[in-house]
Amino acid sequence: MNSKVFVLVHGGGHAGWCFGQVAPYLVREGHAVVSPDLPGHGVNARFPRSWWSRAQEPGKFAAEPSPTAELTLTDLAAAVSAVVRQLARPDRQVILVGHSMAGVLLNWAGEAVPELLSRLVYLSGWMTGPDKSFGDYQRAPEMATTEIRPLILASPDEIGAVRIDFSSADPAYRQRAKSAFAADVDDDTWDAAAHLLTPDTPVAAFTEPVHLTASRWGAIPRTYISCTADRALPPAAQHRFISEADAFTPSNQTGVRELPTSHSPFLSQPEQLARTLVQL
Amino acid sequence: MNSKVFVLVHGGGHAGWCFGQVAPYLVREGHAVVSPDLPGHGVNARFPRSWWSRAQEPGKFAAEPSPTAELTLTDLAAAVSAVVRQLARPDRQVILVGHSMAGVLLNWAGEAVPELLSRLVYLSGWMTGPDKSFGDYQRAPEMATTEIRPLILASPDEIGAVRIDFSSADPAYRQRAKSAFAADVDDDTWDAAAHLLTPDTPVAAFTEPVHLTASRWGAIPRTYISCTADRALPPAAQHRFISEADAFTPSNQTGVRELPTSHSPFLSQPEQLARTLVQL
Repeated sequence: MNSKVFVLVHGGGHAGWCFGQVAPYLVREGHAVVSPDLPGHGVNARFPRSWWSRAQEPGKFAAEPSPTAELTLTDLAAAVSAVVRQLARPDRQVILVGHSMAGVLLNWAGEAVPELLSRLVYLSGWMTGPDKSFGDYQRAPEMATTEIRPLILASPDEIGAVRIDFSSADPAYRQRAKSAFAADVDDDTWDAAAHLLTPDTPVAAFTEPVHLTASRWGAIPRTYISCTADRALPPAAQHRFISEADAFTPSNQTGVRELPTSHSPFLSQPEQLARTLVQL
Repeated sequence: MNSKVFVLVHGGGHAGWCFGQVAPYLVREGHAVVSPDLPGHGVNARFPRSWWSRAQEPGKFAAEPSPTAELTLTDLAAAVSAVVRQLARPDRQVILVGHSMAGVLLNWAGEAVPELLSRLVYLSGWMTGPDKSFGDYQRAPEMATTEIRPLILASPDEIGAVRIDFSSADPAYRQRAKSAFAADVDDDTWDAAAHLLTPDTPVAAFTEPVHLTASRWGAIPRTYISCTADRALPPAAQHRFISEADAFTPSNQTGVRELPTSHSPFLSQPEQLARTLVQL
């Protein structure tokens, strides 16, 4: 049985579009691909009312509560497992791939529908340890070099979201966002991707812990694709996730692959990323 | 042989993301889907420098030449046929679906690689007649009711693109864009889609004629999915395309399906659109 379905799950602020340059390589090999837009992202994104006038009223934009504030981690993760349930068939393996924030959703889905998943693939993903949230790692030394924090425009607790304006009118801010997410992506492609990115990632994705068991999540074969030039999720943090997972499931070790890229391998090296996925 | 590959090609200003809610239904049926971003669109979009400051300097934005002005219709269409060549395999049919502007690209690809295509599907698409451009129809009575024209912000001939600001700071303008493209889409979803849309569609897509032959393009089975509440490409214009094509290839008539939607069925009725595609 060689036919696989790759379910590619985007990270915060991103949406299914980010895998558009990866999918053709997978389909060429005979596989199928879906890359859904999570709740609060892509065509499901919701904007504060001050979004359209933020250039004129930046203070309002920095204070307005997020319309995505009520989304829970379960809302996001249940959307992932729903896609898996929709696509699972006896004659096809489902490979669930999660970028960045989607790592915690893979944790959740691995607990919910382990029997439908033949592999979990974390792409510089938040593979948080048992009963931890991503927020629990924020003060860890492994996160010290992240370039994300200075981009955040409002208190996540107050507005209910992590808010970043990738298409800001301020060119210096836009440049810092590129450095954090996509230093190895050409400027024009990043401008286009930054346009597609949306500002609000629900804070629950950062703060809610995910329960893991060795018998469900821990029994699924897993791979971690480490982006070695990542300035958003530093390689040290990626390695800490791998160490904690391996300690939790000593008989099911993480398969580790490396890509010499920023946090955006789907933009800077889409073919290499696809080749890595095909070979799993 | 039941396994199909659907190549879903977006229209002007759109990108592969617009089919994100359609793809899972097709994959569930055992098919594969790709929806590439054309040159000048999605992650390949290019913005005038005045884009980021357009709220402060609308005059500049209305006059600046488009960075996509040099793209030809051949540049766009060759990208489509390249994807078809990449994905064609002896054991799989390729169904090429084109929305709106992509109609002329289907015409071009039908001439270039007819042997690789098992069906052309025009989704409210510009199925222009032999050696005609879409521009040739602009003064036809069938186009009189289009709501697109008042949205265009600059002279297409002067800036080299048809420029529309879907995420304008002007709420009345945004409302007119929704009326033209997506009157049946809920407001929140349209705001999200409007954010993803990009401003410049290369003028060549409107002005360059496409040569058609009965023996190549005209021999491929074709379907026209007519959106009966379409205010961007009026149903009368859709029917004119169908009549002209059928007159050109009397022995290969267009199969016509109807969806009771706006120009954006992938947003308002994605499951119904997918069902229509699966049944072809």
